[in-house]
Amino acid sequence: MGERVTPDWIAVDWGTTNLRAYAMQGATVLARAQSDDGMGKLSADGFEPALLALIGAWVEPDPVPVIACGMVGSRQGWVEAPYRTVPCTPLAETLTRAPTARPLDVRVVSGLSQANPADVMRGEETQVAGFLALNPGWDGVLCMPGTHTKWVHLSAGEVVSFQTFMSGELFALISTQSVLRHSLDSEGWDADAFADAVSNAMSRPEALAARLFGLRAGNLLQGTQTPVTRATLSGLLIGAELAAARPYWLGQNIAILGLGDQARAYKEALRPQGVEAMLVDTEKATLAGLTAAYRNTKALT
Amino acid sequence: MGERVTPDWIAVDWGTTNLRAYAMQGATVLARAQSDDGMGKLSADGFEPALLALIGAWVEPDPVPVIACGMVGSRQGWVEAPYRTVPCTPLAETLTRAPTARPLDVRVVSGLSQANPADVMRGEETQVAGFLALNPGWDGVLCMPGTHTKWVHLSAGEVVSFQTFMSGELFALISTQSVLRHSLDSEGWDADAFADAVSNAMSRPEALAARLFGLRAGNLLQGTQTPVTRATLSGLLIGAELAAARPYWLGQNIAILGLGDQARAYKEALRPQGVEAMLVDTEKATLAGLTAAYRNTKALT
Repeated sequence: MGERVTPDWIAVDWGTTNLRAYAMQGATVLARAQSDDGMGKLSADGFEPALLALIGAWVEPDPVPVIACGMVGSRQGWVEAPYRTVPCTPLAETLTRAPTARPLDVRVVSGLSQANPADVMRGEETQVAGFLALNPGWDGVLCMPGTHTKWVHLSAGEVVSFQTFMSGELFALISTQSVLRHSLDSEGWDADAFADAVSNAMSRPEALAARLFGLRAGNLLQGTQTPVTRATLSGLLIGAELAAARPYWLGQNIAILGLGDQARAYKEALRPQGVEAMLVDTEKATLAGLTAAYRNTKALT
Repeated sequence: MGERVTPDWIAVDWGTTNLRAYAMQGATVLARAQSDDGMGKLSADGFEPALLALIGAWVEPDPVPVIACGMVGSRQGWVEAPYRTVPCTPLAETLTRAPTARPLDVRVVSGLSQANPADVMRGEETQVAGFLALNPGWDGVLCMPGTHTKWVHLSAGEVVSFQTFMSGELFALISTQSVLRHSLDSEGWDADAFADAVSNAMSRPEALAARLFGLRAGNLLQGTQTPVTRATLSGLLIGAELAAARPYWLGQNIAILGLGDQARAYKEALRPQGVEAMLVDTEKATLAGLTAAYRNTKALT
């Protein structure tokens, strides 16, 4: 439950698996709350109760505007906030109002789409907007690691193009559900094995297909240790991604969203290519983006 | 339950998920039986009861030899039948006796291993032996599609080298458990989309990483039909495999084990490369291999 605070507005980051809310005064966070009521487990009429369960105390006695981004705006979400097509600014001037039973003012940020090659994002556009608000005039490529990693080309305040990779989801599936799970049952990491695998997959992208089963066999026959196998799998996946994303990072100014293990792995993978990427705090970018969306919408009402 | 027959011996193909038994008279099948008591769900003392539940009627009153291949011989199986290292013939002259409580004579075929690159097989060595028994003097490469597809180089009756690919398991994981499952929920197939995807991934193996998420986005934005998406995913995975397995098929005499959809997909993928592969009946090869193993072991006792 939220604390007793009196915010001007409420920022909400509502993804597939988590719901995070922030009681805001301008750009300042007064309080935080979160739950696992992600979009993925809610039906259409479940969003309003899930939100009120978390932030009910913040919207009484007077409802304050709620600005939400993420999968809450998908077709399976609370309300469909239509995709905007790149090239465009990351945020529109209008948001999509969610239907509510109680007197609530909930507005949802639109995602972005790209016609060719076909691609979509929801939630990341807000982080892009926040990153640009924190780094005005920045041109280059933002790498946004996650279950689905996005590479986003930014120029003159607009998203020019972007591309999504499933490497994070593939790592999770392969390491927990495939035959390799038996050889990957710990959290260890071997930095040299990672670097070797990235290099191998970048120079020969077919190495990803060629080497996967060998990780299991190496463990069976040669007793290869789990941290080596784990880092090699990650390196093969990220190396294959970097081979495919070359137009995004070659000769570009690169920022990586995130400060954790996955973001650092991308940074390490790019370094031998002569790319020194900057790491950026994800929550700060999200909040700066939602704040920008709130200021946009406030100007309109 | 098995029928009332009086076999000379019993052939058993015992994999991770299935147990198949054949009452044999020489190389002739008198009766078949099968259950889902695969190695994967049995503990060490569960193998004998699982086998007797299926073929009890065939081993009374006199026990006859049982020759088994597959994961039943792994460390987690009934008895560990040690790997033999390639290059070598597919079958050894000795089999490994399984421990039994009742007077049963169960012998298990050894798998094959390769030191560099590390690789292993269990079960396929018996199919290789059977294929060679049915095609004496055959030299070339046997492609064995499955959850884990094996490419096996055969020369002068020996396995020279082999390589395993996880494309089948990746297709199953991605199509049933990843975000792409929403775009792949039927059984349809588009042959042109498959051929295009194979060609794309063979010429640019990084296409596998680059294009996966686009399959989802194409379905969302352009309404791409499920049969196209499904065949494209399969084509990208098989194309990446063919790019990596090029030394196995380029300029080689190729046979593919299987008559079903997966085997035909490999055949279609190889055709534009000028490779006309022969399709081979898997069950026939397995039985011919177990028969060869039975004759070997009989000569020794």
